[in-house]
Amino acid sequence: MSKNETPRDPNEVLDEYEETLDSVLAEVESPDEATEDDDISLGLPGLSLGRRDFMKAGVAAGAMGSVAGCSALTGGGDGGAANQTTESGSSVSHTVEPGEHDEYYGFWSGGHSGELRVIGIPSMRELTRIPVFNTDCATGYGFTDDTKELLEEGGGYSWGDNHHPNLSETDGDYDGEYLYVNDKANGRIARVNLTYFETDAITDVPNMQAIHGCCVLSPDTKYVLGNGEFRAPLPNDGTDVKNPDNYTSLFVAVDPESMETQWQVKVDGNLDIVDTGKEGRWAISSAYNSEEATDIQGMTRDDRDNVKAFDIPAIEQAVENGNYEEVNGIPVVDGTQSSSLNQGDRPIVKYIPTPKSPHCVEVGPNGDYAFVAGKLSPTVTMIDLDALADSSDPEEVVAGRPRVGLGPLHTTFDGNGHAYTSLFIDSQAVKWDIEAAVEADEGSEDPIIEKQDVHYNPGHIQALEAMTTDPDGQWLVSLNKLSKDRFLPVGPIMPDNDQLIHIGQGEASMELVADHPAYPEPHDCVFAHKDKIDAKKVYDKSDYEETYITEEDSGVERTGDNSVHVKMTTKRSEYGLPDFTVQAGDEVRLSTTNIEGVQDIIHGVAIPEHDINYAVAPQDTREVTFTADDPGVYWIYCTYFCSALHLEMRSRMIVGPAEG
Amino acid sequence: MSKNETPRDPNEVLDEYEETLDSVLAEVESPDEATEDDDISLGLPGLSLGRRDFMKAGVAAGAMGSVAGCSALTGGGDGGAANQTTESGSSVSHTVEPGEHDEYYGFWSGGHSGELRVIGIPSMRELTRIPVFNTDCATGYGFTDDTKELLEEGGGYSWGDNHHPNLSETDGDYDGEYLYVNDKANGRIARVNLTYFETDAITDVPNMQAIHGCCVLSPDTKYVLGNGEFRAPLPNDGTDVKNPDNYTSLFVAVDPESMETQWQVKVDGNLDIVDTGKEGRWAISSAYNSEEATDIQGMTRDDRDNVKAFDIPAIEQAVENGNYEEVNGIPVVDGTQSSSLNQGDRPIVKYIPTPKSPHCVEVGPNGDYAFVAGKLSPTVTMIDLDALADSSDPEEVVAGRPRVGLGPLHTTFDGNGHAYTSLFIDSQAVKWDIEAAVEADEGSEDPIIEKQDVHYNPGHIQALEAMTTDPDGQWLVSLNKLSKDRFLPVGPIMPDNDQLIHIGQGEASMELVADHPAYPEPHDCVFAHKDKIDAKKVYDKSDYEETYITEEDSGVERTGDNSVHVKMTTKRSEYGLPDFTVQAGDEVRLSTTNIEGVQDIIHGVAIPEHDINYAVAPQDTREVTFTADDPGVYWIYCTYFCSALHLEMRSRMIVGPAEG
Repeated sequence: MSKNETPRDPNEVLDEYEETLDSVLAEVESPDEATEDDDISLGLPGLSLGRRDFMKAGVAAGAMGSVAGCSALTGGGDGGAANQTTESGSSVSHTVEPGEHDEYYGFWSGGHSGELRVIGIPSMRELTRIPVFNTDCATGYGFTDDTKELLEEGGGYSWGDNHHPNLSETDGDYDGEYLYVNDKANGRIARVNLTYFETDAITDVPNMQAIHGCCVLSPDTKYVLGNGEFRAPLPNDGTDVKNPDNYTSLFVAVDPESMETQWQVKVDGNLDIVDTGKEGRWAISSAYNSEEATDIQGMTRDDRDNVKAFDIPAIEQAVENGNYEEVNGIPVVDGTQSSSLNQGDRPIVKYIPTPKSPHCVEVGPNGDYAFVAGKLSPTVTMIDLDALADSSDPEEVVAGRPRVGLGPLHTTFDGNGHAYTSLFIDSQAVKWDIEAAVEADEGSEDPIIEKQDVHYNPGHIQALEAMTTDPDGQWLVSLNKLSKDRFLPVGPIMPDNDQLIHIGQGEASMELVADHPAYPEPHDCVFAHKDKIDAKKVYDKSDYEETYITEEDSGVERTGDNSVHVKMTTKRSEYGLPDFTVQAGDEVRLSTTNIEGVQDIIHGVAIPEHDINYAVAPQDTREVTFTADDPGVYWIYCTYFCSALHLEMRSRMIVGPAEG
Repeated sequence: MSKNETPRDPNEVLDEYEETLDSVLAEVESPDEATEDDDISLGLPGLSLGRRDFMKAGVAAGAMGSVAGCSALTGGGDGGAANQTTESGSSVSHTVEPGEHDEYYGFWSGGHSGELRVIGIPSMRELTRIPVFNTDCATGYGFTDDTKELLEEGGGYSWGDNHHPNLSETDGDYDGEYLYVNDKANGRIARVNLTYFETDAITDVPNMQAIHGCCVLSPDTKYVLGNGEFRAPLPNDGTDVKNPDNYTSLFVAVDPESMETQWQVKVDGNLDIVDTGKEGRWAISSAYNSEEATDIQGMTRDDRDNVKAFDIPAIEQAVENGNYEEVNGIPVVDGTQSSSLNQGDRPIVKYIPTPKSPHCVEVGPNGDYAFVAGKLSPTVTMIDLDALADSSDPEEVVAGRPRVGLGPLHTTFDGNGHAYTSLFIDSQAVKWDIEAAVEADEGSEDPIIEKQDVHYNPGHIQALEAMTTDPDGQWLVSLNKLSKDRFLPVGPIMPDNDQLIHIGQGEASMELVADHPAYPEPHDCVFAHKDKIDAKKVYDKSDYEETYITEEDSGVERTGDNSVHVKMTTKRSEYGLPDFTVQAGDEVRLSTTNIEGVQDIIHGVAIPEHDINYAVAPQDTREVTFTADDPGVYWIYCTYFCSALHLEMRSRMIVGPAEG
């Protein structure tokens, strides 16, 4: 197809293409699942190929030819370097024997489950969950007074869509202090304390509809940065609702200690993913919808979208100079293309046209390049961060643009010169040579080293410590959005599939080692060597100096006509109070301290028919306030099996009739 | 110690014992973790043994000698048959290669997480979670109108403590239709539909404080049976709250189809776990607190507690004869020891004194015996179910009582004549010969075949299909309450540890194969061969005949001055409406149908700043009703990554100012 032909609607092409793939796949792998509505032939009579053959035979080329204006897409895996892994009997083991520890912590964002998951690498075992934007009755997150308040002050929502977990850095390496993660749904950023593995702050960022991209500013976590994805009126208060020309997207900087919003930058188009250079100057955001449309056809019309390069010191200077508008208390700097702040020698935001609706940006280990995956272009665009200081002209800042395959979304690194890009449409991980891509012509497939099938439709892809200046190689995880037939059927809502791939130090061929089903939706992950995390096993009593309760403190104090304060300890087999009495209608403040000093001896405080349960770990103190509405006897019991007399560990709450 | 010596308070002894173990363990395994408060010597100067040596050396014998009146407890593992497994390098693999399926479904109750977990065996991978008593923002359980209503009608709580999952049976085998599970906290029973793997009913059982034991009546699921654990006034309405003599525990039968409560039986003492014989007559409940005390010292005073054998046909006859009191609409039959219904030839409940605060009862595969674990006695009491028809005299119905070790809690079976009992205090699984136990003297250790260390403090223990008439052997899972040092540290709230043990067909030695961390609290599990479950991958459109929405239906209908009904389809990349407008204050009923026919193409409906997210699986229809309070633009987006244009899949909800 020549450049002058009218391109087909890419949305239409993609729909057709993916539906065809799905039905071919369904027919081949589960013949009885293909529905009558599926057009499995795509107008190609007699087609009876499997999904891989289908890709390799280049059948897709015609259908996809118009996407991103590329004339000769042949799908992935047709090069001689393609690695056709035998699925069974991998030669590398990821087994961690009983009693042995994993070598790496993996922190998985849980997507719209609202939680984080801590997964051991290489075993892929889930070590724990950390509730963040969700509520969690196992630990009492969202049930105790402190966590209720945290969620209330963080916007009052009971869910979130956490996408991008980021570890705090000192001198460019993980310092093990905090993890920051965004809520795409409600425009929030949360912080998780890695000493106690619990959420300790949630910031509901003003003015922003949906924070999608999220990262820390390397090398010293000066800011937590976030991309507001959805364009909306600013402020979004009901004015101008039907005038999309006046909608805007924002980029935000949040202080990592106070968790307060510092400033925002408004830009043209939608913002997507963000990463920073290693020297504290550049934050690079991928983007789509430079068309500023409100429907899918409009959003995908043009062949280029503007990647944004935020010049952090220049933005700080603009804020210092008072060059901003204050909206809902936040300084908002104008970073649109027409802004005066973008006309001088040092624009605050550089716009770099990049094909096409590019989805992700990751900055490589040595900070040379930002890798921007094309999504609707089969290429990865490499932006030279040094050149960026002088120019935003694509001719000068684009260092390479290899053709990697269909639907490139994310890129990761082994630290030995290789990049690995996930291909959503091809369902592959493609390994390629970074310097060869710089040398090669734009759109060349020469830098490709090998391709590994994944199952199916990968989003993020992460290798060990790939986001640091010194990646560790060895293992790569492909976070695949679909699992289809890979696991025992569990009803219509199927798990995602996190696949573990061995990559060695980059010299080895990729080898698929394990499939791991994942509850929706493990969006992204980040890995830290076990030595970089220093988790405490027992709480520090001094954190609770004022509220810490001793056995002597256990008792009931009437604090008002209709309020009581109940204090009691927990230890193996016994609450500090075998019973206590309140009157119906009382507001009961129940304070509990676990006075045990031994690790892993946790106690629960469950109150039947009062919708209360929470955990109290050793030396921890937690409180809950509730109203005792109905007269009766309610046995408070321990939900953590703590001793042979665990069942007998109870306190009897007697609610007498209301007085008077 | 002779029988006539005054026994020490067992609670005191157990406390001292366990704390000592913990601190010894802490010192040996993590020297810096032992706190100053720990008395690591137990008055034994120079003690510097590991936990296993400590047990084997018999040091505990003195300290534990009074427990359950046993004179010569030596702890486990000192017999010649003890199997000292080398932890690393197990010879049996549980690996399931990429793309291969597990052979068994494991259904794990999630304890106070409120959810069920589906785990593949032997891989131990979590295939999915099924929210039951909790809310779940990943799928929208508790967010959509139908699931909100389900939880509201089920008591209105946002958590539960699910303990015992049970598969529905036909002719004594799993029929793959339903799973039933109890909520210990709020006295409820839920049903999970195994066609779609979702909760479809929750019954808030009247009159009951806490349903602990739960099972179905074999062989044809005539009832779901539950044990009300906590003694409370009946009705628990504020009368008699301070008169524990009038407190009572109830046993309940729920209809498995209508899920309505059929009848209850009140008994003496607390009820614990329940299982049924294979012929539909007997339900056997373990029990504690025959003392009917309200504190731990009182509850553990006596050396015997009464196991209850419920004669189901006899109870049905009593109900039919009108021999009941109606409380809150439920027929309550008097099954206390003094009841007239227990004085005749066919008592409705037989009381069998058993040592000591026995925790669990499991009926063996051929239905001959109920195995009652002693908890505070080191024995398992075998009750002969045939003999039970004629007598409840322990001399006549107790077929055997092997001494298995300290803290026996649960027993499982391999179908080849062996029982496996979990030892909470010894942290072991003990394998013993069932017929040898019948032959041996009471309290004999001769039937013991081997002991396997587990890590640490096991509760339930389950072998494959052990609760059917034809157990499959091969694998056994020990659900250990503590993990301590077994995994990378994740803060003070540590995971439980589910350990996979290979048992072969019973001829092999037990071999510990894998440790799997589990989020609190996997209480119990049940396994079904994959061929017994028939999960659908796409919903049946006819289930939603009235509400199913086609693309032509998509639109907005004003249904009142302040209410609108929005209908829209979902398919890859597009909602049926690119935008819609409502006015501030409108109650919005949003109905969505996923019109895709292909498996695993799920769409999400997330509404920022409105606390709404839910999944719509292929051919499913879900609705949510909310109030659009604040004017503004809100982009509804898809939370399931469904296509290369997933990010562009959005609908724009415009909330205009309130009219008038």
